[in-house]
Amino acid sequence: MNYEFSDKVTGLQPSAIREILKFTADPEVISLAAGNPAPEAFPVNAIKEITSKLLETNPVAALQYSITEGYTPLRESVKKRISAQGCFDPDADELIITSGAQQANELSCKVMLNEGDTLICEAPSFIGSLNAFKSYNVDLVGVEMDEDGMNLEKLEAALKNAKKPKLIYTIPNFQNPTGLCTSLEKRKAIYALAKKYGVMILEDNPYGDIRFAGEDIPSIKSMDKDGIVIYSGTFSKTLAPGLRVGFVSAPKPVIQKIVVCKQVSDVHTNIMAQIICDEYLRNYDMDAHLKEIRGIYRHKCGLMLSEIDKNFSKKITVTRPEGGLFIWATLPDGCDMMSFCKTAVEKYKVAVVPGTAFLINESDKTNSFRLNFSTPTDEQLVTGCEILGKLSKEMFG
Amino acid sequence: MNYEFSDKVTGLQPSAIREILKFTADPEVISLAAGNPAPEAFPVNAIKEITSKLLETNPVAALQYSITEGYTPLRESVKKRISAQGCFDPDADELIITSGAQQANELSCKVMLNEGDTLICEAPSFIGSLNAFKSYNVDLVGVEMDEDGMNLEKLEAALKNAKKPKLIYTIPNFQNPTGLCTSLEKRKAIYALAKKYGVMILEDNPYGDIRFAGEDIPSIKSMDKDGIVIYSGTFSKTLAPGLRVGFVSAPKPVIQKIVVCKQVSDVHTNIMAQIICDEYLRNYDMDAHLKEIRGIYRHKCGLMLSEIDKNFSKKITVTRPEGGLFIWATLPDGCDMMSFCKTAVEKYKVAVVPGTAFLINESDKTNSFRLNFSTPTDEQLVTGCEILGKLSKEMFG
Repeated sequence: MNYEFSDKVTGLQPSAIREILKFTADPEVISLAAGNPAPEAFPVNAIKEITSKLLETNPVAALQYSITEGYTPLRESVKKRISAQGCFDPDADELIITSGAQQANELSCKVMLNEGDTLICEAPSFIGSLNAFKSYNVDLVGVEMDEDGMNLEKLEAALKNAKKPKLIYTIPNFQNPTGLCTSLEKRKAIYALAKKYGVMILEDNPYGDIRFAGEDIPSIKSMDKDGIVIYSGTFSKTLAPGLRVGFVSAPKPVIQKIVVCKQVSDVHTNIMAQIICDEYLRNYDMDAHLKEIRGIYRHKCGLMLSEIDKNFSKKITVTRPEGGLFIWATLPDGCDMMSFCKTAVEKYKVAVVPGTAFLINESDKTNSFRLNFSTPTDEQLVTGCEILGKLSKEMFG
Repeated sequence: MNYEFSDKVTGLQPSAIREILKFTADPEVISLAAGNPAPEAFPVNAIKEITSKLLETNPVAALQYSITEGYTPLRESVKKRISAQGCFDPDADELIITSGAQQANELSCKVMLNEGDTLICEAPSFIGSLNAFKSYNVDLVGVEMDEDGMNLEKLEAALKNAKKPKLIYTIPNFQNPTGLCTSLEKRKAIYALAKKYGVMILEDNPYGDIRFAGEDIPSIKSMDKDGIVIYSGTFSKTLAPGLRVGFVSAPKPVIQKIVVCKQVSDVHTNIMAQIICDEYLRNYDMDAHLKEIRGIYRHKCGLMLSEIDKNFSKKITVTRPEGGLFIWATLPDGCDMMSFCKTAVEKYKVAVVPGTAFLINESDKTNSFRLNFSTPTDEQLVTGCEILGKLSKEMFG
């Protein structure tokens, strides 16, 4: 049979990350290519206690069909928590639980954009979201990143020139893949531009809770007086990603549409996982837990940066993130990034992700690659950076 | 802000079921309107044992990110199980885990159909699937059901006349909402027609494992020599729906596309739930469990049918299902079905679902309503049928 697939998926390819990650199945490969939280950051004992008690006292609630909007007590817990951060306004907003922030971001695109409308995003950006948007046949326009977030002139040009721009997608805190943080000034400017051009903002904040240096910067959602910001978050980086529990806070009419789309997507999110998150928020000390895991990431990021400083060719520049999971390394023009990444994994068994994986078109040019410090052990971080450093000096001097 | 939503969702409305189900939040209402499996059918002790052992011995595997295709041992377990039923051919097919069969059905539509293509389905059919298909702006054409499945003349007419027909959606076993079973002869004929007109079939089989009378009928997938059948299944009715674990078996090129779409939808299905299903299949006796829960449903269906026979107006005819969760009741022309359903819930506090909820357009006409026997207790079944019976005699004689 010669299958004729929909236009939505014919252009979607398994990403270059997946190809690189195939090498990481080899146990001898040191992977600095993943995006997994550190397993030692999972609150395993608490999850064990909660699950055991739940299945003892109320198994049916944990196993029966539930409502699409999510487990009501968890919705209340999350509303309370993010209200304190200015990300939920009970008068204007509603909040539902999603199957990870991935689903929140995908459904936000589905409800707001028709095929052929334009979604404006940071370039580079999180490949999972870019592919979600592409799967609805929307046009993606990337806006180059400065050190403090999207270049505003290029953002305004995109808003002016794009065909039916509807949504700006941004990860303002410790962006994946660059680790960059959008400054307060730029957050205000992005909000003002969205308002001026009548488009909405999708603010994706998976990493905000794992800031390990510097001061918190107010979210764009906290500036939302006009009902134009959709805000997504997740427990993937604070509790555990395998739970697949995220959430989305947005103006009530937007949430109503997202609920209908979530219902047809997976009916509801795994209910046991939702109860685990809620019990954790109610009966354990989330803030103490965050303090602990921030310590883990502070250490790992610091270790990787010091190993990079010690070992890498001086031609390579890197971002110095204050949170999140990633460092973005850039080679000067004339150096072959792709050849470096391929040689590193094929010959020396150290995997990083070529920056092209995070562009709207993988054929576009970048001389950067992404390093992850959350998944590897300290020993792997040191050895991996030594090997990459040696190779970088060999190749680039 | 005056929100401008995508064309995909402006037409999607919360269904009439949801409106009726709002009444069922009232604890005094007897709900024959749900679609929940019987909670006494959940293997609670086994799930408790598996979860406790898992979080004791291998918590990180249950909490870390996992692969989109699903937990590899579970995929193997399901392949083995459905291979025995002819629903998986290792040479031609691949199988992945999904977040319920809902996700399998939604993504099948997403990968195969463009906006404006036609999807042909049974009329009436499962509203969750119909809404999923509508959310991709495909045209739905309903084919009337005979007692033994879709009317073949009408199916062929639809295949001939529809604009770009791409997929036939069918629930051959104990269909939701009618409880009807498609005969072997008709399954063969549907397959032959799909082949003749070059369209694919999406065979949704959530209820096949809970046949409590009669003989199993081979699935359409088991006849698939041409790589044209996508087959979806679920653990929602056999283990527990709150787990949100389903699966889809289809020709390899189709699964490749579904994987890419699943990745952008929720990255992967909750991993603890996947491991629970796998451990159950490996270390417990699924067949003995199915025998036990079939006994529960045989009893409940039989009880409801005998109460219907005893109490309902003789003008009401009902289907007599050999499996599944639902009975379909039909009033003769001239009787007002909607008024009956509304009076039942508003005045007498017994909820059923008006048949219009299962039509492609809720404004289309049907004089049927759906009864569920799996969720209510025996006492509720008896009282509910007595009340409906009394009302039906008052209204229709």
